[in-house]
Amino acid sequence: MTQDLEGVVAAETRLSLVDGEGGKLILAGYAVEDLAEHASFEEVAHLLLKGRIPEPTEHRDFAQQLARRREVPGAAAQLLREAAAAKASPIDALRMAVPLLTLGREENPLDDAMTAIGSFPTLVGTYWRLLRGEPAVPVRSDLPHAAHYLHQVFGVEPAVERARALETYLNTVCDHGLNASTFAARVIVSTRSDIISAITGAVGALKGPLHGGAPGPALNMVFEIGTPERAETVIEARLARGERLMGFGHRVYRVRDPRADVLARAAECFYSHDGDRRLYDLARSVEQTALRLLRRHRPRRRLETNVEFYTALLLHGLGLPAELFTPTFAVGRVLGWSAHCLEQLQEGRLIRPQSSYIGPLGLRYHSACAPVAS
Amino acid sequence: MTQDLEGVVAAETRLSLVDGEGGKLILAGYAVEDLAEHASFEEVAHLLLKGRIPEPTEHRDFAQQLARRREVPGAAAQLLREAAAAKASPIDALRMAVPLLTLGREENPLDDAMTAIGSFPTLVGTYWRLLRGEPAVPVRSDLPHAAHYLHQVFGVEPAVERARALETYLNTVCDHGLNASTFAARVIVSTRSDIISAITGAVGALKGPLHGGAPGPALNMVFEIGTPERAETVIEARLARGERLMGFGHRVYRVRDPRADVLARAAECFYSHDGDRRLYDLARSVEQTALRLLRRHRPRRRLETNVEFYTALLLHGLGLPAELFTPTFAVGRVLGWSAHCLEQLQEGRLIRPQSSYIGPLGLRYHSACAPVAS
Repeated sequence: MTQDLEGVVAAETRLSLVDGEGGKLILAGYAVEDLAEHASFEEVAHLLLKGRIPEPTEHRDFAQQLARRREVPGAAAQLLREAAAAKASPIDALRMAVPLLTLGREENPLDDAMTAIGSFPTLVGTYWRLLRGEPAVPVRSDLPHAAHYLHQVFGVEPAVERARALETYLNTVCDHGLNASTFAARVIVSTRSDIISAITGAVGALKGPLHGGAPGPALNMVFEIGTPERAETVIEARLARGERLMGFGHRVYRVRDPRADVLARAAECFYSHDGDRRLYDLARSVEQTALRLLRRHRPRRRLETNVEFYTALLLHGLGLPAELFTPTFAVGRVLGWSAHCLEQLQEGRLIRPQSSYIGPLGLRYHSACAPVAS
Repeated sequence: MTQDLEGVVAAETRLSLVDGEGGKLILAGYAVEDLAEHASFEEVAHLLLKGRIPEPTEHRDFAQQLARRREVPGAAAQLLREAAAAKASPIDALRMAVPLLTLGREENPLDDAMTAIGSFPTLVGTYWRLLRGEPAVPVRSDLPHAAHYLHQVFGVEPAVERARALETYLNTVCDHGLNASTFAARVIVSTRSDIISAITGAVGALKGPLHGGAPGPALNMVFEIGTPERAETVIEARLARGERLMGFGHRVYRVRDPRADVLARAAECFYSHDGDRRLYDLARSVEQTALRLLRRHRPRRRLETNVEFYTALLLHGLGLPAELFTPTFAVGRVLGWSAHCLEQLQEGRLIRPQSSYIGPLGLRYHSACAPVAS
């Protein structure tokens, strides 16, 4: 009985290899630490959707194709206003708006994928501004993808280091094996449904707290600690109370999550140029103390820094509020969802496992009720 | 390698037992042929959501609770108008509107489930009227669930036999093991996401043609045949050309689908009272001929009448057009999705299978591109 399907292979993929014991993440052949820091998001998107890094002219064409899909349907913009009036959370607003991306278009797998990837920054950025009572900013087709997301959120063109830091983040989280949201997308599209339907389901799955797409709490401990010399006391007290340290430990990785290093370097680079370097140094110091104390208090568990710790530090440094951490994760992961859907459509069959019935048998119905009227 | 997870147990359930070899479907302890024809939809909903058939007073209370959830948020009604203007299909409109059921409400698993079940008839019926340029009709809280759906679609209170026929249909299809849409819902909610998110994903999965929720083509053959004496010639020709006969054969059932008998009886009863009895007799005659010829032409395959054949006949007789067959299936199946989500939340863990990486390894990134600007 493997009701969580742990260890069960449910898909073959050319998209990513997660080696939890070795601490490696391969994205379509490239180590994440090689690819994420250097490649543009558009290059990584081309790699996952089309199987290889594009040549320069292909790169330009592909980037333009993505940029042309930044406008969202009028009904989606209207819906975001309604959701803002109801104070829906940004991830809920995204979940409501994504299904509308089919409006006025013919279904087409690659076009659906490109439309979702291209429009997620618009949906998230627009919604955040509406939620704060600010006007949405028009889409800009002349900005690269990562810069465009920051422009949609903040309404100003970001500095190069800021856009690069976000780009490295998006590349780092763009795919990660058969996580629950990606698997949900593959199950949905395995019926030959459309990719927007599948991505809608994936956003719904990502929303769940067990998914691990909620890095906010990892940073709260850093803020609570405040200065490096308090780290030991605060963390000691937490561990003594038996509390979990957010930002440490991962379901799959038994060694250091390779994404943590990529994001740590991106954060360092960014904080040194254009941020509060003290916060970065504090976070590093908290991390070192936490790892040292975890080894003492939980010697049998191999708890290492996970992707959430540096995600939170990086996104916070970019000025993104904690409410946007999960939606920003979705802006990156929608690429992996899309690529998995294309792969499933091309190669996969209907995914339909079995259930094991543990309920009663042999009951007989005896109606005791007149027709219902209330 | 079981990439479609065939034969893999992914959940324990108290909701339904599908015995494909024996041709049995048990709904929470009751044989479908015992329960579906006699129980009210509200009784079956109580059974699946709360584990037993309600007592009369519970039945009345539960029916009222469901009826109170028939109104949909204003933003959903507005969205349906936008979707109708864009000529979205009814199943796409449902997929777009369902996520909005969280607007203005606090998340709560049972309330989410009841809201989805209670409002699906309103969403589908309203949309169909809007799509045809007719005004939506106000919800009626004094009608039972099945009658309310027909009222939402047609704007008139249905005759008792019509409501009973639909009720039998909804009860018959309300749950069926871990089909792809139900599994998608369980995967999504396994992250501790909300039930509306999960049901949204399930609607997206149901939309896919491989799901088997599209019974329209099964009836087309009956219409094409037109009179009983043409059945043999038309079906012979189809089989000689190697074509599939829609309405026969099922992925799971190796003997007659037990739901086919329930729906055949419901259709007979309804057509005798209030329909074109000749169409019913024609369909029976086509079925007999098809089964006889299938045994001759495909002796090694055990192809029996499936649920789609009589679904199409029944829903057509109720005046529902083929475009509403899949949405009407959703009006019934949303009960199973909801009950599975509640079960998953109560007992299940994060569903996260593995993928097997078959892509390249050891590639190195060499940037060939200047920053992108289009």
